[in-house]
Amino acid sequence: MKKSVSVSDSDGHAFTPLVAIELAEDVKEEAVTWLLDRIKDKQQQGGTDLLVDQVPLETQSDQKGNPNVFVVGATWLRLLQGAEEVGLVKEFSDGSMRGFTYANKENFKSFQGDGDGFLSTAECQYIIKHELDTLRAREETHVPGYAQMKLYPGKSIIRRMQSKGILLQIFPLHVKEDLKRLSLSWYQKVKLSYQPLDDIRQYFGESMALYFGFLEYFTIALVPMAFFGIPYYLFDWESYDKYVLFAIFNLVWSTVILEVWKRRSASLAYGWGTLSRKKAFEEPRPGFHGALGLNPVTGREEPVFPYAKRHLRMYLVSVPFVLFCLYLSLHVMMVYFEMEVWALWLHREEPTIWTSLLLYVPSIIYAVVIEVMNRLYRYAAEFLTEWENHRLESSYQNHLVLKVLVFNFLNCFASLFYIAFVMQDIVLLRQSLATLLITSQILNQIMEAFLPYWLQKRRNKKVHKRNQRIMGEKELPLGEQVRLEADMYTYLGTFDDYLELFLLFGYVSLFSCVYPLAAVLVVLNNVTEVYSDALKMCKVFKRPFSEPAADIGVWQLAFETMSVISVVTNCALIGMSPHMKAYFPESETQLILVVVAVEHVLLAFKFFLAFVIPDIPKQIQIKLARLEFQSLEALKKRLDYLICEKSVRQKMLEAAAGTPNKS
Amino acid sequence: MKKSVSVSDSDGHAFTPLVAIELAEDVKEEAVTWLLDRIKDKQQQGGTDLLVDQVPLETQSDQKGNPNVFVVGATWLRLLQGAEEVGLVKEFSDGSMRGFTYANKENFKSFQGDGDGFLSTAECQYIIKHELDTLRAREETHVPGYAQMKLYPGKSIIRRMQSKGILLQIFPLHVKEDLKRLSLSWYQKVKLSYQPLDDIRQYFGESMALYFGFLEYFTIALVPMAFFGIPYYLFDWESYDKYVLFAIFNLVWSTVILEVWKRRSASLAYGWGTLSRKKAFEEPRPGFHGALGLNPVTGREEPVFPYAKRHLRMYLVSVPFVLFCLYLSLHVMMVYFEMEVWALWLHREEPTIWTSLLLYVPSIIYAVVIEVMNRLYRYAAEFLTEWENHRLESSYQNHLVLKVLVFNFLNCFASLFYIAFVMQDIVLLRQSLATLLITSQILNQIMEAFLPYWLQKRRNKKVHKRNQRIMGEKELPLGEQVRLEADMYTYLGTFDDYLELFLLFGYVSLFSCVYPLAAVLVVLNNVTEVYSDALKMCKVFKRPFSEPAADIGVWQLAFETMSVISVVTNCALIGMSPHMKAYFPESETQLILVVVAVEHVLLAFKFFLAFVIPDIPKQIQIKLARLEFQSLEALKKRLDYLICEKSVRQKMLEAAAGTPNKS
Repeated sequence: MKKSVSVSDSDGHAFTPLVAIELAEDVKEEAVTWLLDRIKDKQQQGGTDLLVDQVPLETQSDQKGNPNVFVVGATWLRLLQGAEEVGLVKEFSDGSMRGFTYANKENFKSFQGDGDGFLSTAECQYIIKHELDTLRAREETHVPGYAQMKLYPGKSIIRRMQSKGILLQIFPLHVKEDLKRLSLSWYQKVKLSYQPLDDIRQYFGESMALYFGFLEYFTIALVPMAFFGIPYYLFDWESYDKYVLFAIFNLVWSTVILEVWKRRSASLAYGWGTLSRKKAFEEPRPGFHGALGLNPVTGREEPVFPYAKRHLRMYLVSVPFVLFCLYLSLHVMMVYFEMEVWALWLHREEPTIWTSLLLYVPSIIYAVVIEVMNRLYRYAAEFLTEWENHRLESSYQNHLVLKVLVFNFLNCFASLFYIAFVMQDIVLLRQSLATLLITSQILNQIMEAFLPYWLQKRRNKKVHKRNQRIMGEKELPLGEQVRLEADMYTYLGTFDDYLELFLLFGYVSLFSCVYPLAAVLVVLNNVTEVYSDALKMCKVFKRPFSEPAADIGVWQLAFETMSVISVVTNCALIGMSPHMKAYFPESETQLILVVVAVEHVLLAFKFFLAFVIPDIPKQIQIKLARLEFQSLEALKKRLDYLICEKSVRQKMLEAAAGTPNKS
Repeated sequence: MKKSVSVSDSDGHAFTPLVAIELAEDVKEEAVTWLLDRIKDKQQQGGTDLLVDQVPLETQSDQKGNPNVFVVGATWLRLLQGAEEVGLVKEFSDGSMRGFTYANKENFKSFQGDGDGFLSTAECQYIIKHELDTLRAREETHVPGYAQMKLYPGKSIIRRMQSKGILLQIFPLHVKEDLKRLSLSWYQKVKLSYQPLDDIRQYFGESMALYFGFLEYFTIALVPMAFFGIPYYLFDWESYDKYVLFAIFNLVWSTVILEVWKRRSASLAYGWGTLSRKKAFEEPRPGFHGALGLNPVTGREEPVFPYAKRHLRMYLVSVPFVLFCLYLSLHVMMVYFEMEVWALWLHREEPTIWTSLLLYVPSIIYAVVIEVMNRLYRYAAEFLTEWENHRLESSYQNHLVLKVLVFNFLNCFASLFYIAFVMQDIVLLRQSLATLLITSQILNQIMEAFLPYWLQKRRNKKVHKRNQRIMGEKELPLGEQVRLEADMYTYLGTFDDYLELFLLFGYVSLFSCVYPLAAVLVVLNNVTEVYSDALKMCKVFKRPFSEPAADIGVWQLAFETMSVISVVTNCALIGMSPHMKAYFPESETQLILVVVAVEHVLLAFKFFLAFVIPDIPKQIQIKLARLEFQSLEALKKRLDYLICEKSVRQKMLEAAAGTPNKS
């Protein structure tokens, strides 16, 4: 960790600002003082032993800034101790990945000299966030100055202040020069090379790096599909034999790439130390509430919420609500198809310019309604998942992802399913697929990256017009820089990015046998996606806290489920094709039975493949086993050591007492 | 561990014999002496520090006994150290399950006074077996007296002698009074109660106890199916509506019981300390061979066999061979059906007694051929799996189980599938199912338990006719007892017992909707199975070494696969029923599509259920998390402790040196 800027706290210690805390503008003075003192307190006194300083308001600024912005840093020693506390795993001198311990620090590979550069800024910021999160109330019953903000021994102070709204945000600060270096190697040069995943991980953490790793992997894995798809499109092959071949190739391929991704992500996570990392005990998420009780695991006081109640809420409210929304969405779709038919009928009855324009109306209405429903549903899903009151952030996320996923899946694909299996109109299906793919891609990238980037740039320009200083060109004073970052959009996690990939994967895999060009379009999209996502991370959003992750979590399951569904749809599409029907001219029943049989065999083969391909590469399994073996061996030796140690101490005590016992 | 019998080793230490070793009768004297010395050596000198004594030949015995039979025991202290080495998990004083450590022994719950009864005889025997297995060669290059029996540093001596055939067997000894007590509470009283699983586990170990636990659970879980099945049979309900209900109930029920079993087995394994037990590094199995190299995990010298070669053997030889055998079995079945038709035709042409007797000939021939093929295939499977040269016993077992399972599945069910789906003769299907179920059950229990029991009893009588002492009635001298047990059959593991249950589960679940009485028959069978299996374990076989197990392993997967297949078969059977066809009089296609859709929904629901029901009960998850949390907390405190410890030692050293440093 190297940083040029540095500030001094009230006691005069110089430190590098790593994390910023923004409190509400009208927060009471006594609460601020108390919070800062608690942060600065030694750990033995229940503090975090971090360094903190207020960020000065730039006097020349004409706008009224919030004075309650603070930066937090730590001494090098404190950071190393924190690294042990959060359980960082680093490369040991013998090449294995081991949990970092302060006592052993010299034996870690990249710990040279005073250990400068051993921890990345992302890691330092993660440590500081962890320390702040685990800053717990002692005997305080409430936040000073706010009698209604109850505290109890062991309650996280930061989380309480956050949930009560007097702590607006905590965010890690950008490091200008690192960011510049990263963006240069990442997206500013257009070149054919892999992304700098290790650098991304250094700067943004494992979770982001895994997303970009997956995006890259997914793109490369689609290239063979795209490659096979081009001749189908160019030569307009209508032979269904060839489509069958193509579909079967796609099915096997999509299974294989998902399995191989697991292996690749295990390799990446091993190298980054997150695969073998022992998960620390997860604290309740900020919004979690309940009657005060004892946590059965830690024995500490914390809110307790009965499982049964949560399950009742989930199964009696959330599940029916989601099902109702799915039904509603289907209903809207049916209305849309009726409107289409009506518009067509109108146009045929009276073919004027007005009625030909009318042909587009249903699509436009449908698109708008879908978008509105999507947004409303998203709010409802967040509200419901919040109301289910999950104790852990991870389980909150999983339940939210599941809800949103199901709805988005239906919204995106229901109309295609309808066209494919009810209307059985392959030409229309191909046409809709192409339209959906192309428009959604273009819209997405504009909405997601370029528009926010432009807005951000415009805002920056306005703010700094007076100073004639444009962001990124010249070093800004710390206060200005921190406040500038505080005003940037907050990155809400990789959810939407994965969702987009998931839907693209759906377009490619579900209907691959009728539109082989889909893979080509998705590859093209993904290449630009890398650039727009990179731009967005570096320029549009606040720096996010790094999140240690060993895999892509629930998304692996989502992609695998999609690939199972795609077996069913592809078999059905092939079975419906006139060419196939020609093979069984006398009996449709026989055709269906054959298709069903083939589908079952393919599914069985899929599960067999997933079962046979090991999730972790052999090399890494061996490395993990070696570590396990060594720790078991060490355990065995402990017994002898303890006995020996005891006798040594006994002898020393005797020597100290001056009464050598010769018996 | 309490035992009345005791012998003395050559140095005069009295000890309880726990394990017997039988060497070949003609083994060279120097090898025997060397082996005994190595066993008796202290651990620091690379021995096992166990006690061993030769079993005297009873002089009055008229038969020529093998003089090279030895019994092994250990001191109490040695056994406790061994318990720590093998990683036994025991109940701690606070009620949690923790890895046993010798230093902490007083803090374990059932460790009272001198710790008598803390380890069961099964555990003691397991420890001794582990110690013997890990008795490694040092500088010896071969077994003394046998220049061709190569050894290298680190090679397990026992395994080499076993694979070369001069060590005939190692087996644990029965404890008469414990066995009597166990058999009394287990099978000698006919009463309605659960099996004494904890006692079984104490005497036979976790793997056996889990088998009997599963047998019991499976039987109880079938009772509701049997209960619903009786009215169907009694009132001869032919309404397919009701069958559909019954089949759907069965499908959901079989999924639920398998999921709940996982939870139950986790509970059992937690209580027995095998759920949280850290697996020790697995040694290569005795038959494993290869060029001498370095194990990448341990760094020790051991045979190394390239993965690629094993995979080539598996996929290029074993898989084709298995597929060929499956084809052959199908072919034989087809021939059988042709013979049946031919016999029927002959009888119709010329209906005499001879031709009516001829009607039974095809079945008899088929039964004999199947049996012969089964045995041949079993040998071939064992040979192939041995030849695949798996490093671990567990992976050898898994590959063997898979091979045998697939073949047995086909042999048992192919004819039923043929009758059901090709001949579409439901009446014949019901009839064959009943015949197969009843005959296989009766035959199995006779062949498996009562016949060997009778043979064993007859042999014992013959051996002891002169002495007028019948086994079990009077205490035999140790030598006689050990040799008697050495002659008993060797129990080859739970494989065949699970296989039987697996096939029964298949009969119940695959065709449940056409023969609801199957569950009743299986319940009746299982009740007697408990008794015959218990009898067989206690009276027929040598006591087996206990095997720590946390679940039923590959069988869970096998049962789950069977229940997936049963969804397909049941849906197909219902779809084929004339009643269902009546619903869709105009179009068979529509019927098939509906059936396929229902099948897909059921399968999806099944996977959803399996996903939603947690594999480990919440209570046990909490207990495991608590332990994990405590060990993490302890780790955090270690840093402070080490620093403190260092300064204390420093001070003590200074005090001892008499030069107090005041700086």
